[in-house]
Formats: sequence, C-alpha cells, structure tokens
Amino acid sequence: MRIRSFFCSGALALTLLAPRAMMAQDTNPLHTATRVELDVVKVVVAQEAAWNRGDLEGFMSGYKDAPDTIFISKQVTRGVAGLLDNYKRNYPNRAAMGTLSFSDLEVRPLDDRFAVLIGKYHLDRSRKEGGVAEGLFSLVFEKTEKGWKIVVDHTTS
Amino acid sequence: MRIRSFFCSGALALTLLAPRAMMAQDTNPLHTATRVELDVVKVVVAQEAAWNRGDLEGFMSGYKDAPDTIFISKQVTRGVAGLLDNYKRNYPNRAAMGTLSFSDLEVRPLDDRFAVLIGKYHLDRSRKEGGVAEGLFSLVFEKTEKGWKIVVDHTTS
Repeated sequence: MRIRSFFCSGALALTLLAPRAMMAQDTNPLHTATRVELDVVKVVVAQEAAWNRGDLEGFMSGYKDAPDTIFISKQVTRGVAGLLDNYKRNYPNRAAMGTLSFSDLEVRPLDDRFAVLIGKYHLDRSRKEGGVAEGLFSLVFEKTEKGWKIVVDHTTS
Repeated sequence: MRIRSFFCSGALALTLLAPRAMMAQDTNPLHTATRVELDVVKVVVAQEAAWNRGDLEGFMSGYKDAPDTIFISKQVTRGVAGLLDNYKRNYPNRAAMGTLSFSDLEVRPLDDRFAVLIGKYHLDRSRKEGGVAEGLFSLVFEKTEKGWKIVVDHTTS
C-alpha cells in the first residue's frame, strides 16, 4: 500500500514521511521519519515561514551560499546572489510575495551527504499581483557545515 | 571567464565539460572532463540515439529500473514501468517521437555515487504530431552495478 508523505503548512508530519526507497518493501505505510528527512523538511518549512513574513534573505538561507548553487526555472540561474536578484525583481514587495505553502513533500535520501526533496508549491496572490501560481519542485540538498542546504533547485509551474 | 559546457548532438564534448564546482576558482576555461562527467553524459547521449531510432526501451535503459525512480513533469510518476507507459501513450509511433537533441549539458558531480546533470532538450516534430517541444531538465544519477542510471528526472517545457 502506498501512502504519500505529506506536509501540513507550518507543522512537521513527523510520522508519515514515507521515503520512496522504503516503499517497495514496506508493508507498513506508517513510517517514522529519519533524521535526514526531518532536517531536510525543516529547511523548507523555515523557507515557507520566512517567505510568509516577507523575509527574502531568510528564505535564501535555505540555499547553499556558493557560486555553483543552481536554480532552474524557465532558465538557469547560478549562484545565490543572482538568485536573490531574481527574487527581488520578481517579488518587489510583500503583496507581490503573496502567501506561499508547500505540500506533498517527499524526501529521498541519496547518502549521508545528499538528499532530494520533491514537492508542490502554491502561491496565493491577488490577481493584481500576478494571481495564484503553483507547480512542482525538486531540490537537491547537501549536508554542509551550516546544515542541509539546497544546491540544485528545479521549480516549475 | 565562464564557459558553458556544451554538447553537440551525437558527439561527446570531451574537453569542455566545465563542472560548476570548478568555475569559481577556475581561471582556465578549458577543462578535461572527469570520468564521472563522461560516464554520465554518455548515458544521455545513448538515450538521445535510442530515441532517434525509435527505441523506447533503449531510451528507458538510462533510468534505474526501480520502483522509486521518479519522473517529474506536470505531475510525478514513480517507477520505470509507469514511466514507460507514459512514454508509449504520449509517443505512440515513430512520427510522434520526432527527433530529439540535447544541448548545454552540464554535469555537477555530488560524490562518488551521485551526480546531477542539467541540460536542454529540443524535440523536432511535425505540427500534426504536436509540433516542436523544448525545455530544461535536471537529472539525478546514481552509480549502480549496471553503471550510472537516472533516479530522478525533472523535465519541463
């Protein structure tokens, strides 16, 4: 039986993060999240919270501050500085940022140092500010000295 | 100076695959591809060739044959069997498959067992068959007993 890992906005789903790697063999759909899963999910929970208080720099702290951090959307952006510029241009004020929520988060640990997280985003925003936006993302995380950080972000509508 | 890693359809760019990890320090834009970079690029070169001879099963052999292999496009598909079904449905015959070419391939090794490859795809196809399609992809590769295989594919237009 399959059960989707899920994530309620603002709260950690502590016991239901079912990693895909376990699914094939897993006869019990309930699964206690591993340390890696929790740590990685916490990063995007913090990003969501930062975004929703208008704290773009806080949001950016989820990324590894390195020139080779990659963000892929309609085009490829490299480096956190360039990414922050993009965000500032696309979301110039609090109203433009709207309210962000993540769902269907699913962690796929690769090894001790790397993990992939996939999920959905939904951005509530007035029509004047661009309207609702939503889509899927996949994030590659690296365990750095400053904790788990995003090194590749592929986000699309 | 930045130089994009590039890929000419059907030929390996042996000396110009510049991994992002090297870019910041790299004063010499020429860079000899590492073993990992070559091995990973070879997989998508083989996929491209398989696609262009109408060999969908050959194309699929680039993926890890596992239930937790993930394909993300407008939605998330899990497992190679489901992915092959999708391809067969969306590309029912040789004309529908068109001619696929990859470009701007760039490998980012993560560690000994994992690597990320990003790039662009372009699908030439008659208007009747759906017309030209193109976009970006990011692939997470795992070094398996059968060689480097895709475990997460995020492809979007």
